[in-house]
Amino acid sequence: MNAPRGTAWLAVDWGTTNVRAWLVNGARVLRRQDFALGVGHLQPGEAARHLRDTIRPAMDAAESPAILCGMIGSTLGWEVAPYVDCPVDFHALHERLHLVRAAEPPAWIVPGLKAQRPDGGPDVMRGEETQLFGWALGDQSRYKGEQLICLPGTHTKWVRMIDGRVESFVTVMTGELFALLRNHSVLRAGPAQDDETAFRLGLKAAGNGNALASRIFTARSRVVGGDMSPSQVDSYLSGLLIGAEAASLPALFGIESGCRITVVGERGLSERYRQAIAARGFTAETSDGEEAVLAGLQALAAKGEASS
Amino acid sequence: MNAPRGTAWLAVDWGTTNVRAWLVNGARVLRRQDFALGVGHLQPGEAARHLRDTIRPAMDAAESPAILCGMIGSTLGWEVAPYVDCPVDFHALHERLHLVRAAEPPAWIVPGLKAQRPDGGPDVMRGEETQLFGWALGDQSRYKGEQLICLPGTHTKWVRMIDGRVESFVTVMTGELFALLRNHSVLRAGPAQDDETAFRLGLKAAGNGNALASRIFTARSRVVGGDMSPSQVDSYLSGLLIGAEAASLPALFGIESGCRITVVGERGLSERYRQAIAARGFTAETSDGEEAVLAGLQALAAKGEASS
Repeated sequence: MNAPRGTAWLAVDWGTTNVRAWLVNGARVLRRQDFALGVGHLQPGEAARHLRDTIRPAMDAAESPAILCGMIGSTLGWEVAPYVDCPVDFHALHERLHLVRAAEPPAWIVPGLKAQRPDGGPDVMRGEETQLFGWALGDQSRYKGEQLICLPGTHTKWVRMIDGRVESFVTVMTGELFALLRNHSVLRAGPAQDDETAFRLGLKAAGNGNALASRIFTARSRVVGGDMSPSQVDSYLSGLLIGAEAASLPALFGIESGCRITVVGERGLSERYRQAIAARGFTAETSDGEEAVLAGLQALAAKGEASS
Repeated sequence: MNAPRGTAWLAVDWGTTNVRAWLVNGARVLRRQDFALGVGHLQPGEAARHLRDTIRPAMDAAESPAILCGMIGSTLGWEVAPYVDCPVDFHALHERLHLVRAAEPPAWIVPGLKAQRPDGGPDVMRGEETQLFGWALGDQSRYKGEQLICLPGTHTKWVRMIDGRVESFVTVMTGELFALLRNHSVLRAGPAQDDETAFRLGLKAAGNGNALASRIFTARSRVVGGDMSPSQVDSYLSGLLIGAEAASLPALFGIESGCRITVVGERGLSERYRQAIAARGFTAETSDGEEAVLAGLQALAAKGEASS
């Protein structure tokens, strides 16, 4: 990376459904905007054009170097930034930044990570690595010893970091399962409202995290049996799925009760995860997901400038 | 029930997607046909018309009394046959046969069952109760002591019978989850082929039955990571889901390893369940599902004639 020192940078978190962009100068955020241009909506080759013709003009960043993370580095995106194998620390991630061919102004894509799951087989992430290091850089204490971090979303990630290295992680399809069941299954129900009682009932109904394909059916049978109203199905199902995750994942990592877990993500969803994790006897705290990804992009850009 | 002794009966298993009809005289089957008239395809009120105008003529059964089981007794069907609370034996089920108002020739609907799940909350079935008793009546030994029966399908049922009574049961959405993941999720893959190796790998990947929402993601990450071909995803996912079910359900019922479990259903799917159950240290045998539902309908009709 050899952008001129002190330049304004375009930092972009380019996901499957959404694009979030910031124009930053060092630690200062000059501009911030979202675009409905996630790679899931694009045809091959469209990303570069949208960056040039839509995002750069809107961000007043026609000439700024860019750093991008997320699915933009996948086969669905702009150019493939190959996965880096875990364990990975911040320095190694920076070393592997992918300079996009012939991009002018220059653009770097943060590579995703690949790890062996504790239960066998590989797992992958794209975008969350930037959040992880952004979060970890926020406090010296996060670089010491073992950390379990949960990044909730469509595909939630549970990550084990040791002394600042990402050691391993697993994906959990909780958000996608919720949407599938909510929109396409016999569990689909009428208009929903946030219902704290139903959410807590769902957390309990998750049991010890096994038999999930059976427990979710109670979202229907409780309605058929008159124990629950259709408007409560969403909150109940959310509690059940997140509860099953909180019951299973620390065990998958061999984490003992009493361990501290940090949830990094959107505020409302993170709070649901915090509740579910606390109900299992773990200490959980939450941390803002948008701040984390921006901090990660800024740190990668700054390290590039410092070493250029 | 007061149909004349010796009459030919129309026996119908009327489900959500399909209708299976038999014309029977005692133990003899005179005719058998399927109709794509499951209640999921029908508007309210259409079932009675289709029975009269399509099914009866095709079955040469214009004047035969009819006995029907399945979703035809739900709010989506012809007339609601209210659920009977477990425990229920064959006699109690026969007592609660629902005579459809003003049906001519007469028609009875077999009521569904309702039970308290071992993990709390209610559960319900419609149609499987007829299969269960049809199977149990096939051999005196099935009426003695405890039996665990698995009825695989879109909504698989695991049922505990004691001395010929249905004590409790739970629904598992394995078949529906498979279809959702196969058709609507990131796990959707290209053309599939039956792959025994991938199925067995899926059985192993189910682990102890927990963390299902995470383990299913390996159906994608193994492909992304180059460990599996897209054509193997279906068999792998089938193994994973059925394996998780076999790992969880006996535990949900407090069943010890070594117990005998009977799988009653369609041959191919039953064999997959048998393998998954055997892999968990239980003895499993299979029994034909169509024979069972027909035997159940015949027994209910015969008992009606005998007592009329």
